[in-house]
Amino acid sequence: MRNLKLILAYDGTGYHGWQRQPAKKTLQGVLEAKLGQILAEPVRVWAASRTDAGVHAWTQVVNFTTQRHIPSMGLLRGLNSMLPQDIVIKEVCEVEPSFQARFCAKRKKYVYRILQAPYPSPFERHYAWYIPYPLALEPMQEAAGHLVGTHTFTSFQGSGCGAKNPIRTVYELTLSKSEHILNITIRADGFLRHMVRNIVGTLVEVGRGRLTPEDVGHILAAGDRTLAGPTAPPQGLYLAEVEY
Amino acid sequence: MRNLKLILAYDGTGYHGWQRQPAKKTLQGVLEAKLGQILAEPVRVWAASRTDAGVHAWTQVVNFTTQRHIPSMGLLRGLNSMLPQDIVIKEVCEVEPSFQARFCAKRKKYVYRILQAPYPSPFERHYAWYIPYPLALEPMQEAAGHLVGTHTFTSFQGSGCGAKNPIRTVYELTLSKSEHILNITIRADGFLRHMVRNIVGTLVEVGRGRLTPEDVGHILAAGDRTLAGPTAPPQGLYLAEVEY
Repeated sequence: MRNLKLILAYDGTGYHGWQRQPAKKTLQGVLEAKLGQILAEPVRVWAASRTDAGVHAWTQVVNFTTQRHIPSMGLLRGLNSMLPQDIVIKEVCEVEPSFQARFCAKRKKYVYRILQAPYPSPFERHYAWYIPYPLALEPMQEAAGHLVGTHTFTSFQGSGCGAKNPIRTVYELTLSKSEHILNITIRADGFLRHMVRNIVGTLVEVGRGRLTPEDVGHILAAGDRTLAGPTAPPQGLYLAEVEY
Repeated sequence: MRNLKLILAYDGTGYHGWQRQPAKKTLQGVLEAKLGQILAEPVRVWAASRTDAGVHAWTQVVNFTTQRHIPSMGLLRGLNSMLPQDIVIKEVCEVEPSFQARFCAKRKKYVYRILQAPYPSPFERHYAWYIPYPLALEPMQEAAGHLVGTHTFTSFQGSGCGAKNPIRTVYELTLSKSEHILNITIRADGFLRHMVRNIVGTLVEVGRGRLTPEDVGHILAAGDRTLAGPTAPPQGLYLAEVEY
């Protein structure tokens, strides 16, 4: 059996998220179907992140095993010619049998894009969260500082999250603004369900003055989801990098 | 009668161009229908540019006359709440009766975006022309120099163009590259049908070495459409600015 790694980018707008679901168009479903056609055998893939509906990926990592001996370059070209244009395979390579895209991932990086402008942009409607009111970046950055490090992130865990262990280590949580786009970058050893979007929603509450940076420290310590801010909408979120 | 000017941006992906057509979704058709609903009277608008199917606008300018006395701000908010998210009204203001968005436009600026990268981007599929092969920018810029000034642009005029006078003055035709995006900016006192896209298609032929900068001067002088390069696809083109 060969173990193949794919690196891909996708626009998640038209999909019910990554994970295969019966009778719904999902990224995993579409990818497995095309792989199955090319390889003429059923294919099951593992992905570094099971992104939610409407969430995008600049860099998603996937692996699968196959008995076929199709060359990597042929597979890359074949897939890109068969896949819809909102999924692009950037790399295909053969890896050692022990590589597993989901469980071997050591760190992942997400970027959340917020559009701040006097009016929304028709070009960003599927690609950023539009916020018309001003956000104070300094208190947001200060609040972000409380979340860096190893913590129990129960307060930022979405309902229905199956993770038994809510402890995660956040290595980086930074804000950067260029023109009308505010980027929030978060790098951690793993993420609970909706964790990035709940953190972003809470930082935005700080930016508009409804919470103080200290409040965010207390919310983290309390371990109570009802205290944190609302979940930011999916279309601003991008899986940006996976480290192994 | 009041004369109102609208400034709007739109993502042209989902439309059969600007101009109203029976039984087709067009930008003019959708805008006039919503204006008609709000003002409770039939509305006919004039636009600075009748953009083609798939072409976008950062700044389109429109005017129309009405007997209603709805305040500009109320009209702006009402329109934006009723229009689909791929059309955004940025400004509404009352102007003097003599203002006419199409015929009073003195100069217009278009930007054409080309994506150059080893693989296409799922996020740019509707917003740029993807060109995988390298383009030499210096000869392209030199070729562009031949087109600046007042010339007869018959060689770059699309078929079916109704313009009787093919003489136009190009004030600016520049290239600028940042990361993977090559922007071609063109500013002129007017444009023949497909003129920007035919110029871009010809400059790309220069960039890949199929035409020399001097060839472009000869093509312009020959006044023969069959000599110029192919028409660049619509999705890279943006109406960027209108000067009055």
